[in-house]
Amino acid sequence: MSDKPPNPEATLPVRAHDNPNIPNSADGAPSKNALKKAQKDAEKAAKKAASKQKEEEQKAAQQASADVDNAKDNYGPLSTGNEVEITHLKNIGEEHADKVINVIVRVHNSRGQSAKLAFLMLRQQGRTIQSVLAVGDDVSKQMVKWAVGISINSFVRVSALVKKTPAPVESATIKAYELHIKKIYLISQAQQMLPVQPKDIERPAPETAEEGQTDASGAPVVTLKTRLDNRVIDLQSECNQAIFTISSAVEGLFDEYMRKSGSRKFNTSKLAGAATEGGAGVFEVSNYFGKKAYLTQSPQFYKQMLIAGDCESVFEVGPVFRAENSNTHRHLTEFTGLDFEMVFDNHYHEVLTFAENLIVFVVTELLSRYEPEIAVIQKYFPKAGDFRIKDNKALRLKYLEGIQLLKDAGVDTTEQDEFKTDLTTAMEKQLGKIIREKYDTDFYVLDEFPMSVRPFYTKGHPSDPNLSNSYDFFMRGEEIMSGAQRINDAEELEASMRAKGVDPSAEGFQDYVNAFRQGCRPHAGGGLGLNRIVQFFLGLDNVRQATPFPRDPQRLRP
Amino acid sequence: MSDKPPNPEATLPVRAHDNPNIPNSADGAPSKNALKKAQKDAEKAAKKAASKQKEEEQKAAQQASADVDNAKDNYGPLSTGNEVEITHLKNIGEEHADKVINVIVRVHNSRGQSAKLAFLMLRQQGRTIQSVLAVGDDVSKQMVKWAVGISINSFVRVSALVKKTPAPVESATIKAYELHIKKIYLISQAQQMLPVQPKDIERPAPETAEEGQTDASGAPVVTLKTRLDNRVIDLQSECNQAIFTISSAVEGLFDEYMRKSGSRKFNTSKLAGAATEGGAGVFEVSNYFGKKAYLTQSPQFYKQMLIAGDCESVFEVGPVFRAENSNTHRHLTEFTGLDFEMVFDNHYHEVLTFAENLIVFVVTELLSRYEPEIAVIQKYFPKAGDFRIKDNKALRLKYLEGIQLLKDAGVDTTEQDEFKTDLTTAMEKQLGKIIREKYDTDFYVLDEFPMSVRPFYTKGHPSDPNLSNSYDFFMRGEEIMSGAQRINDAEELEASMRAKGVDPSAEGFQDYVNAFRQGCRPHAGGGLGLNRIVQFFLGLDNVRQATPFPRDPQRLRP
Repeated sequence: MSDKPPNPEATLPVRAHDNPNIPNSADGAPSKNALKKAQKDAEKAAKKAASKQKEEEQKAAQQASADVDNAKDNYGPLSTGNEVEITHLKNIGEEHADKVINVIVRVHNSRGQSAKLAFLMLRQQGRTIQSVLAVGDDVSKQMVKWAVGISINSFVRVSALVKKTPAPVESATIKAYELHIKKIYLISQAQQMLPVQPKDIERPAPETAEEGQTDASGAPVVTLKTRLDNRVIDLQSECNQAIFTISSAVEGLFDEYMRKSGSRKFNTSKLAGAATEGGAGVFEVSNYFGKKAYLTQSPQFYKQMLIAGDCESVFEVGPVFRAENSNTHRHLTEFTGLDFEMVFDNHYHEVLTFAENLIVFVVTELLSRYEPEIAVIQKYFPKAGDFRIKDNKALRLKYLEGIQLLKDAGVDTTEQDEFKTDLTTAMEKQLGKIIREKYDTDFYVLDEFPMSVRPFYTKGHPSDPNLSNSYDFFMRGEEIMSGAQRINDAEELEASMRAKGVDPSAEGFQDYVNAFRQGCRPHAGGGLGLNRIVQFFLGLDNVRQATPFPRDPQRLRP
Repeated sequence: MSDKPPNPEATLPVRAHDNPNIPNSADGAPSKNALKKAQKDAEKAAKKAASKQKEEEQKAAQQASADVDNAKDNYGPLSTGNEVEITHLKNIGEEHADKVINVIVRVHNSRGQSAKLAFLMLRQQGRTIQSVLAVGDDVSKQMVKWAVGISINSFVRVSALVKKTPAPVESATIKAYELHIKKIYLISQAQQMLPVQPKDIERPAPETAEEGQTDASGAPVVTLKTRLDNRVIDLQSECNQAIFTISSAVEGLFDEYMRKSGSRKFNTSKLAGAATEGGAGVFEVSNYFGKKAYLTQSPQFYKQMLIAGDCESVFEVGPVFRAENSNTHRHLTEFTGLDFEMVFDNHYHEVLTFAENLIVFVVTELLSRYEPEIAVIQKYFPKAGDFRIKDNKALRLKYLEGIQLLKDAGVDTTEQDEFKTDLTTAMEKQLGKIIREKYDTDFYVLDEFPMSVRPFYTKGHPSDPNLSNSYDFFMRGEEIMSGAQRINDAEELEASMRAKGVDPSAEGFQDYVNAFRQGCRPHAGGGLGLNRIVQFFLGLDNVRQATPFPRDPQRLRP
């Protein structure tokens, strides 16, 4: 067994000594065509540079022999067998002051002050730190020149002395320390012309921004579309790093809460033999070994079948597919569903209370465990820090009480009064505002929705035939969850299907309906959208900002 | 806000007083047609029963007035407003002895000893407990008759006195206690004739079992196919309940280990605009808003793009789709991938060691935290308890060392010596046996696979052009993970693609290849199959036994 490191020269073919005269950034907001052209030009330039590499290396070698370089081992491409302990920028603190550390960072920008002095802003996961490269014992003029020529966004390994700064460095996110570089090696080179500039990505852009606009400071605005088209660079921003820390945390807290309750995680099939939850909104797989298959729109049937299979309490995190041509700030064709389903002993409100406490747990833990990340996001999305949840308790209203609040505010609810239609998105938002004013909370629950606006598997209300044992959860007036008690008797289910115009004998329903012929305990559950929770908790403009690689009717890449 | 319980009579329409003369079980193994017919008959019978319900209730009422029933409130369909505290069978212990508890259980079987005495075996999540129903202060003859008539598998709520048993009850899984029933209410009625019998499911069946066979005791054998066709009943077994507790635990331990290391969980898109990892094995979505879309075969490209996006360490749990016509004991068309990818500081062995320790963590924690579940599974799959992992350490061999072990055992490895082909499945299994004998372990790792048998994104070996920085993990001689250092330079990646006959300019590759033009740290990762880990750790016959609703070329339901 060998523990020899790989040869980094084979690993990291870098184009050293690139021409520093090629500009590293475009100052105006480049158009799409200009971007494409710039990229092609950059690629051409890179190829040229590559072919000239040997030549230049030879020249450099000749120059070096003419002008002796006392620091020649302290810079250049990272060479073999040169292993050191690495410190993460996020961990730099008091204990590192006046010590030499090694970091692996991107060059965020660089400025040659003179032949003997340069400043490099270094970046790791969106955090930036100022560094100084000054000719001295460890640093030569050749080294300064080489370092200033490193293309923006390239990865370098730096050995540097950590110094406390006399005054906070306003331009960096790490303000109390700077690095005095002693060694700098190139690990991975970025191309000379990036399609978008990391520094432009770092500035917030309103959702309404258009290509070519500049912001108040005259700097180019990068639209959401351009960001998503160049998602790999976009993800590198301080804000996006924090958003996806929150996203990971939301899922982790859901998992933690469910497991503590004794629930088990399942992964049910996303390929199904029939389109059961409504044909129009279903993606179809055309080549399933001579048969047709469909992508599930939710794990609803499977999690109920697990309950019928005595699993008692189950949860699932997985993709949910919706072939709906909705082009809004909160719709995707694929999102991450956080689903749960469980039996109850006496009343479905046991499950409703459990779910309310889940959201309270997630929100309060986010606010306490992730204060630094939320503060970062707040710089870009001002609402991020102001999510209210009064007394750490859910506010539960009946649906009809919600309607009454809207009526009291002068909203026309005729259609809702006749149980013809659900609350509209506008009504939900308005109700969110009313409730925030009246109850000082951004999280509320509506219970006992009309049966007419719920799916066929919803359990009816015990005394009012117009209503049902079902609930929706809202954050900042936008729906994050839908749930209900489910029908657990096959004949009652078939009757409910027929009443909704669904044929229980249709292909794909038998397994589901038959599950309730074997005896099944009364149960309830819900389905949350991870992306929406992140969006609305943080007050983001758009669900795509909370999705690593979003999919919508227009977008299938990257 | 109302906390009133729903009306259980509306909730739970039960067919009371079913004819106890209809047999509750079929003694022979029923054929497919017989099953279908039985089900139809049962449905007809159920409908008849329903229509006769009122009539019978009236009769019963007349009878009751003739023959006074002093226990009439202690049985029957569960009525409204009757809320009690429920105890789970798994929690019954010393503290309950001689106390009355309430349980919600299935009737596993029932036997009327006389008009005054009956025994009901009660079941919850595969656990069984003996119960006695004897005429006395709380129990009438009418109540005994009614209880014996409850169809097998129906859910009841029972109030009962817990009694320690003088001798262990061999026929139940809970041997030290029995229940003396005081009240019994029907919650959800199972049909009279189930398609398979829970008691038959509880007996192990060898994978080779065929329909109609009987086992050594003369009892019918239920084949894997029949089990999967009737998965809801199959899941109710003691063994399956334990298997899916282990499955949930494996995923939870993976999550725990990754999060402790500082890694973040992502959910990347399963819909992609191009089939990038090999056209033949890809499922195609035919109706993506006028475009074609494909289901990803792994999150490989996305997790590497996240790394290029500075996420540094990421993991994902999600469905993996393979349109491969493989009909083996370990292949599925959809399984749950546990994927991770991370940057390293100096050498890819940092990641390899991390991954080895992950498996050691998962296995050792399973063995210590889930001893009872493993013991249950061992009753059905004898290998479940004997997974060996010597000194709680991974055994790491080089691929060529593995080949040498095979050669030493007389295996012909000509094709492997010429780097023409990977180890065959038979060779892997044989190597697993050799290693178990020689090193006393069921978990081993092969490192430095030939480049010729690895995908194009694999990083080559630093000094041997035939080899690569890649590894596979094996449990009991079967592959559970494949991983490698990845190429992190765009030009090197394009060259590797061309060398493998892949066109880097093909649609769908640009976003991936361009990700490495922005600068990207060296990184490595791997992809584990959750279903296979569960299968091989527990020594199950078939990966379908570790999958709630398996999908293969023949199976798209339930």
